[in-house]
Amino acid sequence: MRVAVIGLGTMGAPMARHLIDAGHQVTVHNRTREREEPLSALGAARAATPAEAAKGADAVLTCVSDTPDLEHVLLGPGGVAEGLASGGLVVDCSTVSPSATADIAARLGERGIGMVDAPVSGGSEGAEKGTLTIFCGGADSDFARAGEILNAFGSRITHLGPSGAGQMAKAVNQVMIAGTYASVGEGIALAQAAGLPIPELLEALSAGAAASWVLTNRAGNMVDDSYPLGFKLALHRKDLGIALDEGARASLPMAVTQTVAEQEDELVAAGHGDEDVSAVARLPKRSAGLPA
Amino acid sequence: MRVAVIGLGTMGAPMARHLIDAGHQVTVHNRTREREEPLSALGAARAATPAEAAKGADAVLTCVSDTPDLEHVLLGPGGVAEGLASGGLVVDCSTVSPSATADIAARLGERGIGMVDAPVSGGSEGAEKGTLTIFCGGADSDFARAGEILNAFGSRITHLGPSGAGQMAKAVNQVMIAGTYASVGEGIALAQAAGLPIPELLEALSAGAAASWVLTNRAGNMVDDSYPLGFKLALHRKDLGIALDEGARASLPMAVTQTVAEQEDELVAAGHGDEDVSAVARLPKRSAGLPA
Repeated sequence: MRVAVIGLGTMGAPMARHLIDAGHQVTVHNRTREREEPLSALGAARAATPAEAAKGADAVLTCVSDTPDLEHVLLGPGGVAEGLASGGLVVDCSTVSPSATADIAARLGERGIGMVDAPVSGGSEGAEKGTLTIFCGGADSDFARAGEILNAFGSRITHLGPSGAGQMAKAVNQVMIAGTYASVGEGIALAQAAGLPIPELLEALSAGAAASWVLTNRAGNMVDDSYPLGFKLALHRKDLGIALDEGARASLPMAVTQTVAEQEDELVAAGHGDEDVSAVARLPKRSAGLPA
Repeated sequence: MRVAVIGLGTMGAPMARHLIDAGHQVTVHNRTREREEPLSALGAARAATPAEAAKGADAVLTCVSDTPDLEHVLLGPGGVAEGLASGGLVVDCSTVSPSATADIAARLGERGIGMVDAPVSGGSEGAEKGTLTIFCGGADSDFARAGEILNAFGSRITHLGPSGAGQMAKAVNQVMIAGTYASVGEGIALAQAAGLPIPELLEALSAGAAASWVLTNRAGNMVDDSYPLGFKLALHRKDLGIALDEGARASLPMAVTQTVAEQEDELVAAGHGDEDVSAVARLPKRSAGLPA
């Protein structure tokens, strides 16, 4: 398949590599053009604009930072819609607004272009290993066509409904982890303030109702007060904004999600946005004067 | 061993049965005396007061509702301390204040009575099956003596430090599950408001960072808007009060725990205190006008 990949960040670059490895004919474009070079060295063609990258492609894979970026890259001047022929397919692995996604998909549809929203979970490690969980939205026929691309880097690929459903599922994921990260952080801080023996405590907690991926995989960061990536706190905050917007549209206030979003705002303002999202433990730990 | 069991509620009654099954010589007492009858039918002796139950016992197991009840049963008029000989042991499986526990243990210590705080996790099902997780605090020698009792109904028994450490570990457990229950509830409400296909969504979410015991075991309650026990929401709210008190002593504000405690207050006031704690999903679901 001839695939254009637009957006070569922490997630997009390894996705492009997996597509090359799978034997696809890949053209890459990134706003900061030097990021195209390592892919070019692996055999990818380079393009100066999204429109140029999309010219002659069967499908375009996008992986950009937020909703305005996605709209610009797809429908702005020099965007994908100017280059991709009718009958082409856009597969978007960004995490963006579900509502905006449905709107963008409709606008692409007017030009005969299909779209699958396909936000991922599993972080940079999952992208490198090609073991991402992918939440998909779009028409059945477009989802079927996207399979050849998504299989190159995803290990669990679920079709959840029409355009926007994949983004909505990702929003649900980010909501569910928000309260879990925060309350595991509060619990760790309470345990350390009380001087409990942490390894024995974590083992006992993991055997019961407090068991979670976060407890198993991120409590160590919180105990050590050291937050290597993982998944950037600032990006999780962006994702909670998307979820809170969708909640507001459904008259659905989410008190815990709102509380965690405010904590993350405080941490971003204090310069911790590039740390792993487990850094939410900083707030209760600092309040209690706990040493790192 | 001659063991007195005081407090024959949902947890205490099956504990007493397991002790009888294990061959101990059991005497029971409950404030509402009729609850002693099924245990009497199994061979337990009955006593009119905690003091009388404790007379001649090697150890006393308590399982009562809250801190004032525990103080009354142990140190009040007609309490355990009036009957239990020096050298005796109190094993308390209630969930009560860690600080008060340390104080009660010290007062019992003045009379030569040892104490192990041993709050449990695993609910009524764990008590029936004898598979409870038990968080213990107390002197090493007292913990060693308590083993013969706790092994009768516990499958994971962890010694976490001096008197109060078991209660503190339980408080940490209740803090960690608070945010997880609430944010899984918010996520389920968002997913249902968006019309996502729930079984497929839950399967995809469970494969990644959102995985938790709560998601696996309680999302179904939230989807169905039906909250059979499990573990009573009103009791979880009581436990969060204990945790928030201990947090305040350590200058440790816990914003998410506080938010969930307020939600639970609202639910208790609305008559949902006897439902499973997963009923926290009622608030976002009702706001969004989701049908049951």
